[in-house]
Amino acid sequence: MEQRPDGPWRATVLTIFPEMFPGPLGLSLAGRGLAEGIWSLDAVDIRGYATDRHRSVDDSPFGGGAGMVMRPDVLDAALDGAGGVGPLIYLTPRGRRLDQPLVRELAAGPGVRVLCGRFEGVDQRLLEAREAVEVSIGDFILSGGEPAALVMLDAVVRLLPGIVGAAESLDEESFEWGLLEYPHYTRPQLWQGRAVPEVLLSGHHEKIRAWRRRQAEEITRRRRPDLWDRYQAATDLSEG
Amino acid sequence: MEQRPDGPWRATVLTIFPEMFPGPLGLSLAGRGLAEGIWSLDAVDIRGYATDRHRSVDDSPFGGGAGMVMRPDVLDAALDGAGGVGPLIYLTPRGRRLDQPLVRELAAGPGVRVLCGRFEGVDQRLLEAREAVEVSIGDFILSGGEPAALVMLDAVVRLLPGIVGAAESLDEESFEWGLLEYPHYTRPQLWQGRAVPEVLLSGHHEKIRAWRRRQAEEITRRRRPDLWDRYQAATDLSEG
Repeated sequence: MEQRPDGPWRATVLTIFPEMFPGPLGLSLAGRGLAEGIWSLDAVDIRGYATDRHRSVDDSPFGGGAGMVMRPDVLDAALDGAGGVGPLIYLTPRGRRLDQPLVRELAAGPGVRVLCGRFEGVDQRLLEAREAVEVSIGDFILSGGEPAALVMLDAVVRLLPGIVGAAESLDEESFEWGLLEYPHYTRPQLWQGRAVPEVLLSGHHEKIRAWRRRQAEEITRRRRPDLWDRYQAATDLSEG
Repeated sequence: MEQRPDGPWRATVLTIFPEMFPGPLGLSLAGRGLAEGIWSLDAVDIRGYATDRHRSVDDSPFGGGAGMVMRPDVLDAALDGAGGVGPLIYLTPRGRRLDQPLVRELAAGPGVRVLCGRFEGVDQRLLEAREAVEVSIGDFILSGGEPAALVMLDAVVRLLPGIVGAAESLDEESFEWGLLEYPHYTRPQLWQGRAVPEVLLSGHHEKIRAWRRRQAEEITRRRRPDLWDRYQAATDLSEG
């Protein structure tokens, strides 16, 4: 596998747990891509930029309340020291939802810098001064930004050229038509008295495609009314 | 730290990459809880239940198409062999969105069994026969279920009694009022010409609380109309 002519796609992660990286990204497709230089991962320890002898990165919140807040001056120094390329992303439930279009946008760029918050979060002034892009992976609370960073990087890295081989599939059947994915079946053809749907054995490609689309429509309508509404609007447009 | 009287909360993960676990969950609060027996993590290698000499877990999809599908018979044997307690969760973009109420529900139970899909996904009949609960962490595509499992377990484990100490905060300020979180500030009070908002230095708890709530309302209204609509409906109800 050759390196990209413009060098590897670069991930720079700021964290107080650099030993969490590459973690799962060091294995499987992402790990092979890392070893082959398709992408690079730099986990920078924020504590290395603390200025007191306790290596403090956080302090009490102004206005009171539980928990600690990460200091703007320490994070600022860490960002200067870390370097890296691409947008600065701060992972927080307050952010714009990560979705496949954003994943594609990040994969098309030169890289990303990711700030992993811990404790109650980071000082608001740092986010403003650095024009951080706030991104959320969902409406739930994690112990810190690190697990979310692993997820975001996994989604992005699999889109880099050379990561997913021709044998695998990148056609993104989830969301291919703006719909959830249709059900899959493989051998054995009869399992525990459960048969594979007849049509899939027909060899009739047109019918199979139509069946899969109807299944995808049905599951989307039942499970995700928000996606279903958008799909209907888009279909009306393209047909109207 | 004492063990829970009814034993640890149990996570059983079925994966073809058991070496991805505990990964980040072996560090920080979750890692301490694991070492202390507050929770347990069993990563079961699905390949150990393959029946051919290549240890195949997947096969071509009926009906054609790119990618491979995980076999129902192999997964069924792996589930029998793995044991574990609690609901069987299959992580897929097709699933119910993971949110904080679901995280709380899982933390209140005895544990969870998590099936990590790879390739195109798993045979539909296995999901039906095992009454798997399909859960999604968002509208994006990962290389497999493993990074999503790490995120889900991180969210759940931090809610187990004994994981987050009194010094930290569990009050879930994100979503505390059904709103996104207000901005945080810490020392230095003046940083790069940017001052901390006056009211936070006032010591006037009532005013500080009101300011934070207004900030949370404002950021929610701008960034997440869906949450904002729900918040307004709930507020109308409680006031009406």
